[in-house]
Amino acid sequence: MSPRPSAVPPPVTAVLDAATAWLPGMLGSVERRLGEVAGGHGPALDAAADATLSAGGKRLRPLLVLLCAGRDGGDSAVRAGTAVELVHMATLVHDDVLDDAPLRRGRPTVFATSGRARATSTGDLLFSRAFALLADAGDSAQVSLLAEASVALALGELEQRRDAYDTGVSAERYLERCRLKTGRLFECACLMGLAAGGGDGAAAVDLRNFGSRIGLAFQLLDDVLDVTGPAERTGKARGTDLLDGTVTLPLIVASDRDPGLRGVDLRGLDPAGAEQLCERIAASGALEEVRSQALAMVAEAKAGIAGSGFDAEQRDLLGLVADGVVERYS
Amino acid sequence: MSPRPSAVPPPVTAVLDAATAWLPGMLGSVERRLGEVAGGHGPALDAAADATLSAGGKRLRPLLVLLCAGRDGGDSAVRAGTAVELVHMATLVHDDVLDDAPLRRGRPTVFATSGRARATSTGDLLFSRAFALLADAGDSAQVSLLAEASVALALGELEQRRDAYDTGVSAERYLERCRLKTGRLFECACLMGLAAGGGDGAAAVDLRNFGSRIGLAFQLLDDVLDVTGPAERTGKARGTDLLDGTVTLPLIVASDRDPGLRGVDLRGLDPAGAEQLCERIAASGALEEVRSQALAMVAEAKAGIAGSGFDAEQRDLLGLVADGVVERYS
Repeated sequence: MSPRPSAVPPPVTAVLDAATAWLPGMLGSVERRLGEVAGGHGPALDAAADATLSAGGKRLRPLLVLLCAGRDGGDSAVRAGTAVELVHMATLVHDDVLDDAPLRRGRPTVFATSGRARATSTGDLLFSRAFALLADAGDSAQVSLLAEASVALALGELEQRRDAYDTGVSAERYLERCRLKTGRLFECACLMGLAAGGGDGAAAVDLRNFGSRIGLAFQLLDDVLDVTGPAERTGKARGTDLLDGTVTLPLIVASDRDPGLRGVDLRGLDPAGAEQLCERIAASGALEEVRSQALAMVAEAKAGIAGSGFDAEQRDLLGLVADGVVERYS
Repeated sequence: MSPRPSAVPPPVTAVLDAATAWLPGMLGSVERRLGEVAGGHGPALDAAADATLSAGGKRLRPLLVLLCAGRDGGDSAVRAGTAVELVHMATLVHDDVLDDAPLRRGRPTVFATSGRARATSTGDLLFSRAFALLADAGDSAQVSLLAEASVALALGELEQRRDAYDTGVSAERYLERCRLKTGRLFECACLMGLAAGGGDGAAAVDLRNFGSRIGLAFQLLDDVLDVTGPAERTGKARGTDLLDGTVTLPLIVASDRDPGLRGVDLRGLDPAGAEQLCERIAASGALEEVRSQALAMVAEAKAGIAGSGFDAEQRDLLGLVADGVVERYS
């Protein structure tokens, strides 16, 4: 049904395969640091929570930090990569509490194994550890970047909850929310990397745009995936967003194309109804439209760094990360 | 029943009355900053949440920051006082979500007005704003102090949840948890104030102890209050901690005195049972014992700063804050 981009291996693997020796070593250091933070609190963090936290993920944000810092980013880049992933993990742990989510990445969530209270505190702990890690090294510029991005994340969440069940939300408003909720942390990862590598300020604008664009594309594709399913691939039921009252671009575009969808009442939706609504959104052709918007953003992101002061390897690897964002959904 | 300390006016009022002009002005600046943060996000923060956040509280932590910084603390002290109170507010907002609390300080909680999801994000937002405020001013030493204290807060919460319903918990373990959960942020407020005022490192040990002791006393007295009630004074039902499975010092001490209380099963407790258990704890004399432990800590705190390098006014005002901690419970 949808145009399939040419097959590429999973994002991290592709980038690591293409990289020279420095990148895998540094990504390994980030992983060790994350393990220390997740595992370094003894029995206060349950073993199950611990396992979940160290279970991994795509590590796209640390990858961006390391690539933007370059091969001389050193410990400063490793710290920044670890901190940005800790904030990301903290938000996932809190999201899982709010969504009563039993699984993430195929494993039980902290919420599922430890309950609401411990999961909320675990999120707060990861969050605090991120700032402590940067501040203990005396790096207030990095704290500033990460704290401002965290403010944006929280505001994005608040906007999403405020707009819940409002099917009249505009595409602009949706995109602004995604910029806050997802784009800003990708952008922050790039800028933290640049700062860690001592890169020049001229590249900052290009990198900010790169991060923001691939973050936005990532969110759009994630929202498409919520409509397409299937559950065994995404780990959640089709239409979870709709059941949650979250109006995303696929529904907004579909309502433009299929007037019968306008003003649909999400409050009364049950899983079967959500499934039907997903079918109808898909039938409108909205998914292809949103997917192609996302692909255009990724292409723009790649074009935007073509003229930057990066060396060819860095540019190629950043391009692979951008492709990786798309690949997940192909 | 219990020994009443001599009547003193509410803590903040007493301190402000005794202070010369600089303190009220600076505390007013903290209040304005808090208002900006709570009110500066437009419609994303609901009006009700906004009202709750700017509704106040005792502001003990900012008061400690300002007093430890002294009259020349300037904007750095105001920022630190604001940041420490933001972290405190963030934890209250999250606690209210976890406790399903309808009221705090006689007003509806963010949880009550805006629901779990928005309250969780509001807590995250306040937390992020605290770090952004300090980091944007380039103050990584302050970020470091606050982040480490936040880590301790989260660990204290995790320990409390892990120990839930365990009536065999020792007094030592309870005290250690209180140090993390409450003492560390008071301690942090003192140290941030000292740093903001450019105070010398020699006073750091005394201030750290001062903050830790009054924080611990504060928590002990709070735990006594949960047993004594009454609801119209504390804003919550008697025995809320017990219903929540939280074993505090009054129960630990009472179990030593009244063997019939050992191994009481908190899981099956209903509000009437909690009320009865509170009566039995009170009858054991445990409340007087815990209260006198708290008063001894406050006295020790005051004695510990007697020889410090503070001027007489600062010392007197810190003494009044310490008394204010006790007064709330007299």
